[in-house]
Amino acid sequence: MRIGVLTGGGDCPGLNAVIRAVVKTAIHQYGDTVIGFRDGFSGLIKDKTVPLDLPSVSGILPRGGTILGSSNRDNPFRYAERRNGQATQSDVSDTVVETYRKHELDCLIVIGGDGTLEIAHKFTAKGLNVIGIPKTIDNDLSATHVTFGFDTAVNTVMEAIDKIMTTAESHHRVMVVEVMGRDAGWIAISAGMAGGAHIILIPEIPFDMERIAEQIYTRKGRGKHFTVIVVAEGAKAAGGDRIIKRIVEGSSETVRLGGVGDMVARELEELTHLEARCTVLGHIQRGGTPSAFDRILSTRYGATAAVFAHEKKFDHMVALRTPDIAAVPLSEALHQMKRVPPTGGHVETARRVGISFGD
Amino acid sequence: MRIGVLTGGGDCPGLNAVIRAVVKTAIHQYGDTVIGFRDGFSGLIKDKTVPLDLPSVSGILPRGGTILGSSNRDNPFRYAERRNGQATQSDVSDTVVETYRKHELDCLIVIGGDGTLEIAHKFTAKGLNVIGIPKTIDNDLSATHVTFGFDTAVNTVMEAIDKIMTTAESHHRVMVVEVMGRDAGWIAISAGMAGGAHIILIPEIPFDMERIAEQIYTRKGRGKHFTVIVVAEGAKAAGGDRIIKRIVEGSSETVRLGGVGDMVARELEELTHLEARCTVLGHIQRGGTPSAFDRILSTRYGATAAVFAHEKKFDHMVALRTPDIAAVPLSEALHQMKRVPPTGGHVETARRVGISFGD
Amino acid sequence: MRIGVLTGGGDCPGLNAVIRAVVKTAIHQYGDTVIGFRDGFSGLIKDKTVPLDLPSVSGILPRGGTILGSSNRDNPFRYAERRNGQATQSDVSDTVVETYRKHELDCLIVIGGDGTLEIAHKFTAKGLNVIGIPKTIDNDLSATHVTFGFDTAVNTVMEAIDKIMTTAESHHRVMVVEVMGRDAGWIAISAGMAGGAHIILIPEIPFDMERIAEQIYTRKGRGKHFTVIVVAEGAKAAGGDRIIKRIVEGSSETVRLGGVGDMVARELEELTHLEARCTVLGHIQRGGTPSAFDRILSTRYGATAAVFAHEKKFDHMVALRTPDIAAVPLSEALHQMKRVPPTGGHVETARRVGISFGD
Amino acid sequence: MRIGVLTGGGDCPGLNAVIRAVVKTAIHQYGDTVIGFRDGFSGLIKDKTVPLDLPSVSGILPRGGTILGSSNRDNPFRYAERRNGQATQSDVSDTVVETYRKHELDCLIVIGGDGTLEIAHKFTAKGLNVIGIPKTIDNDLSATHVTFGFDTAVNTVMEAIDKIMTTAESHHRVMVVEVMGRDAGWIAISAGMAGGAHIILIPEIPFDMERIAEQIYTRKGRGKHFTVIVVAEGAKAAGGDRIIKRIVEGSSETVRLGGVGDMVARELEELTHLEARCTVLGHIQRGGTPSAFDRILSTRYGATAAVFAHEKKFDHMVALRTPDIAAVPLSEALHQMKRVPPTGGHVETARRVGISFGD
Repeated sequence: MRIGVLTGGGDCPGLNAVIRAVVKTAIHQYGDTVIGFRDGFSGLIKDKTVPLDLPSVSGILPRGGTILGSSNRDNPFRYAERRNGQATQSDVSDTVVETYRKHELDCLIVIGGDGTLEIAHKFTAKGLNVIGIPKTIDNDLSATHVTFGFDTAVNTVMEAIDKIMTTAESHHRVMVVEVMGRDAGWIAISAGMAGGAHIILIPEIPFDMERIAEQIYTRKGRGKHFTVIVVAEGAKAAGGDRIIKRIVEGSSETVRLGGVGDMVARELEELTHLEARCTVLGHIQRGGTPSAFDRILSTRYGATAAVFAHEKKFDHMVALRTPDIAAVPLSEALHQMKRVPPTGGHVETARRVGISFGD
Repeated sequence: MRIGVLTGGGDCPGLNAVIRAVVKTAIHQYGDTVIGFRDGFSGLIKDKTVPLDLPSVSGILPRGGTILGSSNRDNPFRYAERRNGQATQSDVSDTVVETYRKHELDCLIVIGGDGTLEIAHKFTAKGLNVIGIPKTIDNDLSATHVTFGFDTAVNTVMEAIDKIMTTAESHHRVMVVEVMGRDAGWIAISAGMAGGAHIILIPEIPFDMERIAEQIYTRKGRGKHFTVIVVAEGAKAAGGDRIIKRIVEGSSETVRLGGVGDMVARELEELTHLEARCTVLGHIQRGGTPSAFDRILSTRYGATAAVFAHEKKFDHMVALRTPDIAAVPLSEALHQMKRVPPTGGHVETARRVGISFGD
Repeated sequence: MRIGVLTGGGDCPGLNAVIRAVVKTAIHQYGDTVIGFRDGFSGLIKDKTVPLDLPSVSGILPRGGTILGSSNRDNPFRYAERRNGQATQSDVSDTVVETYRKHELDCLIVIGGDGTLEIAHKFTAKGLNVIGIPKTIDNDLSATHVTFGFDTAVNTVMEAIDKIMTTAESHHRVMVVEVMGRDAGWIAISAGMAGGAHIILIPEIPFDMERIAEQIYTRKGRGKHFTVIVVAEGAKAAGGDRIIKRIVEGSSETVRLGGVGDMVARELEELTHLEARCTVLGHIQRGGTPSAFDRILSTRYGATAAVFAHEKKFDHMVALRTPDIAAVPLSEALHQMKRVPPTGGHVETARRVGISFGD
Repeated sequence: MRIGVLTGGGDCPGLNAVIRAVVKTAIHQYGDTVIGFRDGFSGLIKDKTVPLDLPSVSGILPRGGTILGSSNRDNPFRYAERRNGQATQSDVSDTVVETYRKHELDCLIVIGGDGTLEIAHKFTAKGLNVIGIPKTIDNDLSATHVTFGFDTAVNTVMEAIDKIMTTAESHHRVMVVEVMGRDAGWIAISAGMAGGAHIILIPEIPFDMERIAEQIYTRKGRGKHFTVIVVAEGAKAAGGDRIIKRIVEGSSETVRLGGVGDMVARELEELTHLEARCTVLGHIQRGGTPSAFDRILSTRYGATAAVFAHEKKFDHMVALRTPDIAAVPLSEALHQMKRVPPTGGHVETARRVGISFGD
């Protein structure tokens, strides 16, 4: 069999482990030929390939990033280019099909997020055999129990909270840590529980600044002169954009002066007269060597995708249905977001041990 | 309610996180009083207690070990003591019951391995209300999907393999890493897969030294002049004690000259004339700050045990039945070992990516 | 002898290691009594103490923060308070002297930065015996070769760069990492060299945005489609505030829209049309368990300070004069900043391996 | 200029960072051509080369091991081979000279320990221009203040002690940690101080088992029911081989049943009736990503070696004379071992904070 592989979308620990497992399984088990495409679908548009033999994947298991490169701006159905200094947009999906045919591929394994997998799914209608491997560091995909990269990100955030916790305690401060999670609060709630945060703000539970200030005072009453707050970047106050307005009052326009973490810190300084500081963890959450859990899950995903290629389970993606790896039709899996249930589960456990959600 | 807590058996990352969650939930949710007993059942035998209020569990979430202390030699039904220089053994279980009554406990939460939980179960017959929280770093308990501490141990071993891998490659060596796992190979197979080991030897699959030597030669033929082998301490050669005999030939008695890792390394040097070295990871596998996964699981175990106390689910233990924490009768859970299935699951994935089990 | 100890100023890995070494040396070597004051000089103003015996320093060596607490707003010569809702400022230095006398102290060991040590020095004129232990995570003190906490911060930043490097490479991005260093670029240049950054911007060498853009293009010409830039928070463009102005053009007021890192990233996006992202590492640089180097240096500082107390080397501070710990008069040590020499040393090495300083 | 590079001897974190700095400096500063030789002097004997251009050293800074490979059995003056099944030994140094000439080298940069550098020095007499870069993870070379790899090893050992400390405390055990250091105790004393060990045994200070047992009892008297002992592999009892004899009594031959760490643990169990366990850290001390300190020192060494090549400082090696990198004649630097001074320095600081050396 001749198998193509590409990685699309943002960085995520475990991408190289997935690629390695696809290649090793395809070669060791089936004697396949594997071809990597550079920088997501761009590699198929421009026919930029890299041979994926055993030496090429040697030693990549512990490494962050992706040896294939990735891209965020490579939708072949709406491909954006600069021609003669002009931004143009065109459908180059037939070029992708041509490249696929030229390399005589039997299957294309696409590792990517919702957007990338939707593109992959559309190529089924154009006759390509695609298999998806879901990638979302936010763990917000309902079709699979866990996604790779999430465990590593949670550990990275937890270690940052560990570091910030002692500073908060020694210096009697309110420390706000802003983490990834635009639509779902999985990283915030998981790392917040693991790090011993006192307040966790997630998109699923609107927060109230006055309630948070009260909780800080309650802690002070118990002799705890510090508070650590973990905020998902998508968390919102119950009263909506009130925060933004207050911060820019006096200015003629409404500009975003930083993320929700900065705003929460500023508001709390005003409300409580305590020192409050915000740290935005940013891109360090997407990098680094994958945790053991993520390396194993990535290996299982990659190995199973190679098996699915030979079982002709096309237009499907691999998914963890603990303890098994199942094949889920891409059409069913796409756009099905998994949010943190606002009752039960992690939220219930967190409340039991005294964590507040600012509500 | 008045709740007692003790920790028994070997060290395991997450013990403090469990204690903290019990205390926080009991106090925040129910206004309970919690009393810690020192050094396992010894604390009940000798009435050595430590008050477990909120300040006492502050800051312990990330710490290894147990603030309560533990013991391996404290079975109250067969209590070993030195009296007048003589080793004696006696049944002091009634003293435990007295201490329980004296402190007017409504429930005793016992965090420990199979041995400790069996003792807890026996006290039910003596009228005590016990709730168990299972602890085994080897993850070899069938009643629960995962046990806390395991994920941390696997990450610790993986990091050691990462370090040893580059040495093996640069110096063209066979490197053997001996890890925990007397009866089950979970740590070896998980960390071995995560670390990219080439050969994994586990108790569930007897190995053959000649086969291992062959695989090292096969790798050499492919230009790979190094091999990393992960061995569970309970792994055995198919031919049994053959290894031990060869090593001590010429000696008048059969002595154990090191663990299975040392033996594998020595045999391979003889068979392949390559340099082979063994590292026994030992106690570093049991220590360190718990991983995010273990801190969350420990928190869920502890919080749920406190809830179970109020729901009077006595003579039960908490268990992870993904994604829920269930109550399992101790009588059902005891002595039910979970071994690595020699086909399917992890073994199948590992074989797919080219890992050998020396068989 | 009766010795008082306090910690002042911002957080810094190694503070607890210093306290521990003072206490252990004072007790083991001399049988002294040691008293801790809470939250910097506040503890002397309000007579808030904590006994520092051997049990109180047990287990604190690896922990971040300070068990004594710290404060940034506690200058007894200009003490700011709220009385009846009014902010007042007064000289309460005599209260400090009274507390010192009340506890019959023979010496006060002050662990802190330039500001805290200056206060300590002023108390010499009021008859107190003070010994200083210098603390600056930025390593910008000329009186000592290295300060504790710096090595840990550099390692923390390096690990963040390691994580960001793979993302930059996989996603063909310009990644900017803003680190501590208001006046001196020690953290930036050290962590930048250790992390393999391509461009390092420090306060000592004004940078030029067009030069940086050129260097990014030069890299692109060599097939390197990514660039990692480390920026000290105090780095400045040669043309001064030009950057700030351009960013807010169209706005009626000149507001600071983020630090220098954000500005560099935005400017580069405009100049190069490449994706550029900034991560501000913030408070994680001040926390965490100290590195081996910092634990040893802290231990040497603390132990030597206790010895100096008995040698009556008052109004001095400990300082590393490799390989010795020397006593330096506080009057000589204060306000003597150590900056990165713009030629020779680290800058020369960095340039040799191809690192640019944006000049 | 045409420069050759090789790495010899055991693994050491920073080797790749040295190679990278040599290559980057040689190419960026001088436009040189750099050629790597595989597996130490073997590469010159068998003419196995690898081109060292900029892409070949891209991304290797954080990686353990050496991309050039190394060897321990490659002395060209006494080269051991198997011919027709026979072990032979011959002088192939002229072959090395031929290879050097064939590649028209102007200089050979040799990165290695005492043995490797001595070989390099001998080639000066044969007309080769050699420059040495000293490598010893044990830091036992008097010609240079610090060697690369040492700081990483000390941190690795410290982290292991951190993990073992909590187990020791929770389980009331004597825990022995055996670390590298055959002739000098630098790793043991540095990591022991950094990890808060209670007793440190080094080759420079003979120990006494009875004294150690006493110290354990003294700790017990102060309520400390655990003790952590760090032992350098070359540490020896004052009474010499007494330990070994006692352990094998009853056996007909004297065999080594493990290292000094195992023996200390067994002896202490006998003497104190406490549980004692030993962990031998082994090869994990030589691997892993280098610390910031080691990456910077390695970069300085490599960059300066390239400069020395152009300054024709042949038959010299680079050496850290804080804060400078100096050139030291190989003839002066060889075989000059740096041991831990048994009085003053680290030993004095350690004793001040209550650490015993078992004497």
